[in-house]
Amino acid sequence: MHVLVLNGPNLNMLSHRDSEHYGTLSLDAIESMLRKAFPEVAFEFFQSNHEGELIERIHRAVKNQDIQGVMANFGGFTHTSVAIRDALAMLTIPRVEVHLSNIHAREEFRHTSLTGAVCNGIIAGFGPKSYLYGAQSLLDLIQSAP
Amino acid sequence: MHVLVLNGPNLNMLSHRDSEHYGTLSLDAIESMLRKAFPEVAFEFFQSNHEGELIERIHRAVKNQDIQGVMANFGGFTHTSVAIRDALAMLTIPRVEVHLSNIHAREEFRHTSLTGAVCNGIIAGFGPKSYLYGAQSLLDLIQSAP
Amino acid sequence: MHVLVLNGPNLNMLSHRDSEHYGTLSLDAIESMLRKAFPEVAFEFFQSNHEGELIERIHRAVKNQDIQGVMANFGGFTHTSVAIRDALAMLTIPRVEVHLSNIHAREEFRHTSLTGAVCNGIIAGFGPKSYLYGAQSLLDLIQSAP
Amino acid sequence: MHVLVLNGPNLNMLSHRDSEHYGTLSLDAIESMLRKAFPEVAFEFFQSNHEGELIERIHRAVKNQDIQGVMANFGGFTHTSVAIRDALAMLTIPRVEVHLSNIHAREEFRHTSLTGAVCNGIIAGFGPKSYLYGAQSLLDLIQSAP
Amino acid sequence: MHVLVLNGPNLNMLSHRDSEHYGTLSLDAIESMLRKAFPEVAFEFFQSNHEGELIERIHRAVKNQDIQGVMANFGGFTHTSVAIRDALAMLTIPRVEVHLSNIHAREEFRHTSLTGAVCNGIIAGFGPKSYLYGAQSLLDLIQSAP
Amino acid sequence: MHVLVLNGPNLNMLSHRDSEHYGTLSLDAIESMLRKAFPEVAFEFFQSNHEGELIERIHRAVKNQDIQGVMANFGGFTHTSVAIRDALAMLTIPRVEVHLSNIHAREEFRHTSLTGAVCNGIIAGFGPKSYLYGAQSLLDLIQSAP
Amino acid sequence: MHVLVLNGPNLNMLSHRDSEHYGTLSLDAIESMLRKAFPEVAFEFFQSNHEGELIERIHRAVKNQDIQGVMANFGGFTHTSVAIRDALAMLTIPRVEVHLSNIHAREEFRHTSLTGAVCNGIIAGFGPKSYLYGAQSLLDLIQSAP
Amino acid sequence: MHVLVLNGPNLNMLSHRDSEHYGTLSLDAIESMLRKAFPEVAFEFFQSNHEGELIERIHRAVKNQDIQGVMANFGGFTHTSVAIRDALAMLTIPRVEVHLSNIHAREEFRHTSLTGAVCNGIIAGFGPKSYLYGAQSLLDLIQSAP
Amino acid sequence: MHVLVLNGPNLNMLSHRDSEHYGTLSLDAIESMLRKAFPEVAFEFFQSNHEGELIERIHRAVKNQDIQGVMANFGGFTHTSVAIRDALAMLTIPRVEVHLSNIHAREEFRHTSLTGAVCNGIIAGFGPKSYLYGAQSLLDLIQSAP
Amino acid sequence: MHVLVLNGPNLNMLSHRDSEHYGTLSLDAIESMLRKAFPEVAFEFFQSNHEGELIERIHRAVKNQDIQGVMANFGGFTHTSVAIRDALAMLTIPRVEVHLSNIHAREEFRHTSLTGAVCNGIIAGFGPKSYLYGAQSLLDLIQSAP
Amino acid sequence: MHVLVLNGPNLNMLSHRDSEHYGTLSLDAIESMLRKAFPEVAFEFFQSNHEGELIERIHRAVKNQDIQGVMANFGGFTHTSVAIRDALAMLTIPRVEVHLSNIHAREEFRHTSLTGAVCNGIIAGFGPKSYLYGAQSLLDLIQSAP
Amino acid sequence: MHVLVLNGPNLNMLSHRDSEHYGTLSLDAIESMLRKAFPEVAFEFFQSNHEGELIERIHRAVKNQDIQGVMANFGGFTHTSVAIRDALAMLTIPRVEVHLSNIHAREEFRHTSLTGAVCNGIIAGFGPKSYLYGAQSLLDLIQSAP
Repeated sequence: MHVLVLNGPNLNMLSHRDSEHYGTLSLDAIESMLRKAFPEVAFEFFQSNHEGELIERIHRAVKNQDIQGVMANFGGFTHTSVAIRDALAMLTIPRVEVHLSNIHAREEFRHTSLTGAVCNGIIAGFGPKSYLYGAQSLLDLIQSAP
Repeated sequence: MHVLVLNGPNLNMLSHRDSEHYGTLSLDAIESMLRKAFPEVAFEFFQSNHEGELIERIHRAVKNQDIQGVMANFGGFTHTSVAIRDALAMLTIPRVEVHLSNIHAREEFRHTSLTGAVCNGIIAGFGPKSYLYGAQSLLDLIQSAP
Repeated sequence: MHVLVLNGPNLNMLSHRDSEHYGTLSLDAIESMLRKAFPEVAFEFFQSNHEGELIERIHRAVKNQDIQGVMANFGGFTHTSVAIRDALAMLTIPRVEVHLSNIHAREEFRHTSLTGAVCNGIIAGFGPKSYLYGAQSLLDLIQSAP
Repeated sequence: MHVLVLNGPNLNMLSHRDSEHYGTLSLDAIESMLRKAFPEVAFEFFQSNHEGELIERIHRAVKNQDIQGVMANFGGFTHTSVAIRDALAMLTIPRVEVHLSNIHAREEFRHTSLTGAVCNGIIAGFGPKSYLYGAQSLLDLIQSAP
Repeated sequence: MHVLVLNGPNLNMLSHRDSEHYGTLSLDAIESMLRKAFPEVAFEFFQSNHEGELIERIHRAVKNQDIQGVMANFGGFTHTSVAIRDALAMLTIPRVEVHLSNIHAREEFRHTSLTGAVCNGIIAGFGPKSYLYGAQSLLDLIQSAP
Repeated sequence: MHVLVLNGPNLNMLSHRDSEHYGTLSLDAIESMLRKAFPEVAFEFFQSNHEGELIERIHRAVKNQDIQGVMANFGGFTHTSVAIRDALAMLTIPRVEVHLSNIHAREEFRHTSLTGAVCNGIIAGFGPKSYLYGAQSLLDLIQSAP
Repeated sequence: MHVLVLNGPNLNMLSHRDSEHYGTLSLDAIESMLRKAFPEVAFEFFQSNHEGELIERIHRAVKNQDIQGVMANFGGFTHTSVAIRDALAMLTIPRVEVHLSNIHAREEFRHTSLTGAVCNGIIAGFGPKSYLYGAQSLLDLIQSAP
Repeated sequence: MHVLVLNGPNLNMLSHRDSEHYGTLSLDAIESMLRKAFPEVAFEFFQSNHEGELIERIHRAVKNQDIQGVMANFGGFTHTSVAIRDALAMLTIPRVEVHLSNIHAREEFRHTSLTGAVCNGIIAGFGPKSYLYGAQSLLDLIQSAP
Repeated sequence: MHVLVLNGPNLNMLSHRDSEHYGTLSLDAIESMLRKAFPEVAFEFFQSNHEGELIERIHRAVKNQDIQGVMANFGGFTHTSVAIRDALAMLTIPRVEVHLSNIHAREEFRHTSLTGAVCNGIIAGFGPKSYLYGAQSLLDLIQSAP
Repeated sequence: MHVLVLNGPNLNMLSHRDSEHYGTLSLDAIESMLRKAFPEVAFEFFQSNHEGELIERIHRAVKNQDIQGVMANFGGFTHTSVAIRDALAMLTIPRVEVHLSNIHAREEFRHTSLTGAVCNGIIAGFGPKSYLYGAQSLLDLIQSAP
Repeated sequence: MHVLVLNGPNLNMLSHRDSEHYGTLSLDAIESMLRKAFPEVAFEFFQSNHEGELIERIHRAVKNQDIQGVMANFGGFTHTSVAIRDALAMLTIPRVEVHLSNIHAREEFRHTSLTGAVCNGIIAGFGPKSYLYGAQSLLDLIQSAP
Repeated sequence: MHVLVLNGPNLNMLSHRDSEHYGTLSLDAIESMLRKAFPEVAFEFFQSNHEGELIERIHRAVKNQDIQGVMANFGGFTHTSVAIRDALAMLTIPRVEVHLSNIHAREEFRHTSLTGAVCNGIIAGFGPKSYLYGAQSLLDLIQSAP
């Protein structure tokens, strides 16, 4: 089973960010945690600070059809990118949005999720473990997909 | 380990609700699913259509201190109840908000979560499985609590 | 024919309210008026000042299927209760919202009807007679239902 | 008893409109239905797609005082016409606003009723029968007028 | 000197309107008052309840160039008509907006003047005398025009 | 002299709430403080976390007319309950709203008071002593009532 | 092929309007330009400054079914007329909205198009040539219609 | 007859301001113009750049009752001063608000008039002549006062 | 004990204001009432219609440190003055805001209190007695200050 | 004649997008359609999912001056990119914005066009043919440019 | 070279204000710092807590023309004073707005600068050094003025 | 001393932009100006039209810790990029935002600075010299940093 894990801007810098909101694990550590937790899954971690690269990675998933599900944390793009939303909406495989911090408990401009509205579900606020629960939920969606 | 699972208005009627948003399991079935998945946990399912009863159940958790974590789905109260928010804010144990449907993909008045802003995290959109992931996340929070 | 007439907060106190907005009949008098006007109908008048009780009465109607239509005046809950709206939306029988006062001619916070949006129709502003017209409209809907 | 029934834009075209919102009767059929239901009443049906003609018909009612009540469905003008509202406000006889569709369950720009705020009551959502209930309510208002 | 006095909807009915806002004079009486006060001016009073007729009267003024100034009270259209505003904006002669009532002291939807923004000045709140002051101001503008 | 002291949701849990906003006294201690301060007054403390129970307690005050004044702290319902506002508006005896915390210095959703708008006055921000000042103000209103 | 070209308020006065926004051609010249460009099409130019006349012309198109497509420039009504929108929505033939000026580059109240939302497409900002492109697009829509 | 002419901030500097909005006369010249036009009136021109001084001059008029009417141009305070509005509201003599520029045709923050809402009428946009018309309107109000 | 009582614009004119909102006592009478009620306190009543004077009086309190508490009624400045708010925020002694009228029951622009947000508490709606309760609350705050 | 055709995010994926909004042609097919329709024009199709690349392609057009006109469909960037708007505003050659779907008939966040406001005109809603009409309009603008 | 440095409310009290936002220097110390840094410039420091005095000091600069530039920190008036904005707009010499704190990083009501919009530039957030940079920028503007 | 100067979209094209807002110097000329003014500082000018590249350059500064301060002009990204804001917030070294134009005096969508809210200070409106003052302020911040 192949799962694409999209990570948006600043997620390559987790160890430098405010640990109160983002926890203390690096993105690599999160990836290791995922691989260990789900050894049967081939995770492809893709991080980019470029909106366009995230869009194009989604495009490849649309075209190649070699991915069974997408988990995404678009960071700051979550609240502003119509373009990523439009890309996501092309996918017919399950997709789950995750956030390290509880976006409803921060600045008001973080309460809106343009991208989450075209995902199956949203998980936010559990620090690195949001990825664990996101992966579990994605696998379940993949397995229950028709 | 004792976990309180709070369920707000209309959640006792899941089998009668729109399955596109709410899935096809009854709340009892969700409870069974949870118990089977986490046999080591004593779940107390509490459902009420009364704002006051939900508040008072939270109060007992505050006072008795016999609960290690709270998972909550306040249904329609999620978006309107300052009173439940104030009750939740008294808890010092971990708390997780779950929703069956993806609240960001429905009517605009469902995008705001007054209660989720005082929880650790939010999980929404996975149908009955939102409870499974919520329980997992809550247990993890309990175990990592100081 | 069984018809449920739901009455929200403060409607048990009609004789004490501002007669300019609410007329001079008590709820009992309205009930008598209805029974006299529609002797062939078994009206069940249900009044509660508790959001939860109104929700649960709707639930029973959903489950028992012994009611052919619902007429409702949710009073102040009309403008604030997502939970009652969610309950109402489960009903598949005809439902009509009535208001004693013309909600469009009062304070701005009374112009919105969360609950009326999931009813077949709305009748407002005729004092106690709103119930008469509401009953007539409900019977017609029941008779023309497939 | 003379009753004026004002019909705004597009109501002359009912048989061509979306039957889900507007039902299947033509305005003529609605008029016949009314005459049959209330044989003792002289209904004057007045339809215009011109804001000014509706205003002037109201003016004649104000001046001639040969009308005992007004039932009105201003269609799209309901939500935009300060001028019709100002005309209506000159009338001292009973006036009732009717709508075929449930305006609270459609686009947000249809939720506001500038004209209904200066009527005694509003009836909306019952298709052609909104006129029947409107007529009944109007007659009652006329009979109970001082 | 020819002056066009445009009067919008309901102004033909002044004697029937709320005297607190609109005074007690009819539009004819206002016209007489103006003619007596300014015997040297040929006033053309034009009243219409039709937006289109008001627009077309403005068009004739644009084309014929036989009018030296325009005084206008567009009634309810003041707040809603982009079309009249666009017509007025074609005029190069002086134009003055008058209102019988003080629009800033009434409902909020009367505070905005789409049409007044393309006039030289606005006079509001003096009852019938708003027309007297409007006429005086218009004559002064005409005389001081280049 | 009989005075009803209404307390809304979470006020039974004062000793568990954030002392910065709510002080350190329990509601019982506040009641004792009041009784000691005003020995000539028969205070009836009524606390409920149920909107409906608060409404019904107000109803009894309306009907029994054995109460001379009402002091109320509706907690989270202050900002959301049209139904309690409607109940309060039926009272003709003096009524005073009190808040432990300064609602203007907290989250924006606490700045509006639906219920305070139908009281004689509002006292907020003095912790438990808000009740003392509220009681004093209420007694004065009762004594100066006609 | 019969095409109806609807022109709203002030479009009969193009030669008198601000040429920066509206160009220098009269509506007749635009009509000639169209006829010359599309000799095979029978264009019916219909201009009115009356909302009601525009609505009724649309009604005739609905009823007579002798028109294959509609091109419309509703001028100031574009932004305010729910009634024209409702009329347009009855048409099942292709419809295209055109504007001489770029409505997105002018006052904010011109950014919204109530009527364009029920057309197939919108063309704005090309001066008189907006009509040329509109006609071309309409013919293509007609030819590709099922 | 004594008339008080209140002039707010920057009106002492008219000759230095943008003549397109404010004309070319100084405030002294406006005063002379008024005296010449109304020789029978004792005008007291009062200009201040201090909100407090304007308030206190109004207070003296309230107390001394030696003034028959007030004409006021509060400049920038028009849009922001609740305190001047409260002072004006104490006056029972006629009061007229004047503006040199057409406030509806300038920046949006100038469209609101807090102070004009408690005056009898408003005259705006005629440059210095706004004062002439204002004076005339004020005299008429004084003479027709009961 | 020295207490400063700040009074904003128009409070020197209480006997001339609308008694429904402001009661019938003059500010001097309120001062006497306070002195009689609290003979042990040296009240300094300071009234000004000048924002700057109120700011500077606060400054002296900040610098001289001879005042133990501040009670303030900033009248119309309550809702508009960032500058007074900034001055108040420098004080470290207790401060209480009082209003004669119930600001939540009047025009919407009076619902916001910029200055109250930096006070300990707010008392509004009791007419002159708001000052009595304010003084009592202030003394209590002073006595319980560390 | 050289024309630059800018295509924003997701337009390289047309064949995978919702055909109801976007039609069934790929961007290559659109390009072929354009080349066939306008054989005399050298179209340069430039597509990018990267905001920066679109900006830089515009920069080259500004600097090289080898392009006579720009047609652009910025996809999701249309509604969010101030940076592209600023780049476009540097161009002095004609520019036309095109959209496949009717942006006024979709989600509200698609109604605003930041980029279209600095173009000559906008064409939206004709599917792939929006490009054809856009090209025609652009050529006309180029030919009529001074 | 003469430079006027305007300082609004509370700036005379810097040493008493929150040092996190305002630094630790008094206004006198800032003045000394400026004089030392720019010995060739005659700085006139003008501080007032009175809106009117600030306006009148600007007026003198307009009239006397003995000042070459203005640096201003209007404190709380920055966000609320249309009157100061109107005064500033009369100046034709360079003007620079400075703020000690970063107004974009504080309460939302401090994000708007009515006065800065009519200055050449704005410098905010550098504590007392904002004045140094403001002075330098002002001198540069003066020297490069035509 | 190493200083990073970040320049966002379109700043590489300054010589092609509107000189009224942006001055006449190219970015290279600004860089030279800075180097000449501050010969002791090693400026690294970094310009990108790609949001992602700007984010990644900030990341390198976070990681390498070889930079003592950051001066940034994010152009159009200033008002829209949550992602850049999140990157900036990771920096612990001083950071200053500069703008060539006075953003408060332009379109409303330029009044908000998402990025400036996480900088020490903001300098705007001085054309190229904004960089000079920004550099000076940054050096001072660096030198006074603990």
